[in-house]
Amino acid sequence: MDDRATSTRADAPEAILHGGDLDRVSRRYPDAPLPWIDLSTGINPVPYPVQTISPESWARLPAKSEERALLAAAATRYGVNAPDMIVAAPGTQALLQILPRLRPRSTVAVLAPTYEEHALCWRRCGHQVRLVDEPGALADADVAVVVNPNNPTGRLLSRDSLVRLAAVLRQRDGLLIVDEAFVDLYPADATVAADLPPATIVLRSIGKVYGLAGVRLGFAISSEDIAPRVREELGPWAVSGPALAIGTRALADDAWLEQTRARLANDCRRIDALLESAGCIVVGGTPLFRLITSPNALGIAERLARHGVHVRRFPAQPSWLRFGLPGNETDWQRLAHALRNVS
Amino acid sequence: MDDRATSTRADAPEAILHGGDLDRVSRRYPDAPLPWIDLSTGINPVPYPVQTISPESWARLPAKSEERALLAAAATRYGVNAPDMIVAAPGTQALLQILPRLRPRSTVAVLAPTYEEHALCWRRCGHQVRLVDEPGALADADVAVVVNPNNPTGRLLSRDSLVRLAAVLRQRDGLLIVDEAFVDLYPADATVAADLPPATIVLRSIGKVYGLAGVRLGFAISSEDIAPRVREELGPWAVSGPALAIGTRALADDAWLEQTRARLANDCRRIDALLESAGCIVVGGTPLFRLITSPNALGIAERLARHGVHVRRFPAQPSWLRFGLPGNETDWQRLAHALRNVS
Repeated sequence: MDDRATSTRADAPEAILHGGDLDRVSRRYPDAPLPWIDLSTGINPVPYPVQTISPESWARLPAKSEERALLAAAATRYGVNAPDMIVAAPGTQALLQILPRLRPRSTVAVLAPTYEEHALCWRRCGHQVRLVDEPGALADADVAVVVNPNNPTGRLLSRDSLVRLAAVLRQRDGLLIVDEAFVDLYPADATVAADLPPATIVLRSIGKVYGLAGVRLGFAISSEDIAPRVREELGPWAVSGPALAIGTRALADDAWLEQTRARLANDCRRIDALLESAGCIVVGGTPLFRLITSPNALGIAERLARHGVHVRRFPAQPSWLRFGLPGNETDWQRLAHALRNVS
Repeated sequence: MDDRATSTRADAPEAILHGGDLDRVSRRYPDAPLPWIDLSTGINPVPYPVQTISPESWARLPAKSEERALLAAAATRYGVNAPDMIVAAPGTQALLQILPRLRPRSTVAVLAPTYEEHALCWRRCGHQVRLVDEPGALADADVAVVVNPNNPTGRLLSRDSLVRLAAVLRQRDGLLIVDEAFVDLYPADATVAADLPPATIVLRSIGKVYGLAGVRLGFAISSEDIAPRVREELGPWAVSGPALAIGTRALADDAWLEQTRARLANDCRRIDALLESAGCIVVGGTPLFRLITSPNALGIAERLARHGVHVRRFPAQPSWLRFGLPGNETDWQRLAHALRNVS
């Protein structure tokens, strides 16, 4: 990880390997059957159905009343008492870019391995970042970052342990950041957004479970002394008119979320069976993706690519592969066929 | 302006009065005829027609290939040699928030009166900002900010004078920022984006002339040493999938821009005649808005509001009003009727 400590996106544009961009892999496997099945992300492949967007949403500057409606829906969905504690942003990544600016030079501990943009963004702003393996090591830093449930391992720290961590950090004017991008389908006690601990910022998103990564809409939930500073870093009209409308509707739709929970639970059982019959060991995941280990992970990824199936590799953990879920029966059949050929 | 020098949006949320948010004015005039006619912005009321958005644009993470297509279209439209010189952002405001972070503490001269977010954003980041009345006073600062053509006055500095200013600033490692949000319908020699001077950042937008402020899409055009730093401040996936698709199509549409140019020229003649017969003196503007002075500006704005017409006032210039253009014949008739009542 030392290389990444000093590199930035500008001088090393490929320093972080992200899922979700098929351009490169499709160039490398020009003979793969089309269309590609992109299982390289943890994005729900059956997205929330986007309503018809009114011409005014595209044309007008997003109105404060529309933003208030979105924040009210988010407060209800996330169990947050005051909508003022929530700041809407054009994607969680926009918040990751901003959070390091809220602090003077700090020591930052990131519970790793995890989504790499957290460490990169803090480093870029001059903070001293350590990747730590154990939750116990988080309490020594000024700022602790936890993705919960974690991507890609699925590790879930308990609410109680996060509340205790926040209390320790608060004592030395520290900060706890909990990225809950994948928490929507977990039991209510998995989130710290409701009944927020002090000195804590929770990140939520409609990109993953709602399957709307292209909309660019994420949220920071924090105490009323922190939230205005986040809002000020973003500036006015940060979220597009259509994103305000889509988010307001999606977050209020209890029925869709329940159906999605049931469907994804079935899909996880189905993909786990496929993976295991291909000799992979499922070692982690969330309702949106599965993490497997195999001594032959690279070979599996390459053979899947030749079948037009793109999965996520982890250069620092070469025995790992992350599988998102197929979105329709055709893709399931193609995945099953491709996996039969790797076992 | 001294109050604003130290206040921020967080502790004084109403410090800057923007057009485009009807919420407040409609509460103040509950008896006004509906719907409100919002002439408080300089946004084209006949927007570029948004195509059908594919479900994938909402669902997938925006792909690098889609961003490249957008930047290629922007390079052609703006006459920029290399698409790499262009950075796409979720609205010009997102760029205003970022530019002050590219510089150590600097002296910043903003040619005023103008769009107030420029000065506010630089001040917030600790820079020393002066508002200057004359272009000649810009050359003394480290950073010079010019909105060209200016909002709300319409003042247009020549390309030659900006090139000279950039050369002076460059000599002391300074920076020229030219906000060209309203330049799209001007002759080709009004922009400095094509054949960019050194040490210059040009801002462009599809919010104003294309009438798509809700889409949130703006551009920074700069040299290949500055552009990567802007891109890095924004981070990946800054622009939504639909914004990439809409911008790519809109910027390639020459015919629409020509039709819009002709229509807005007619509309400006029409509104100027209406304003003058109401006793207003048109002292400036662009093809998208007109600036008038009247000793009775406040009274005119209040009477227009009672007729459901919202125009832009300027607390620091109480004799000014800015009028955007009506978008359909009904609104033209209502504006004409309302103006007859104020004369």
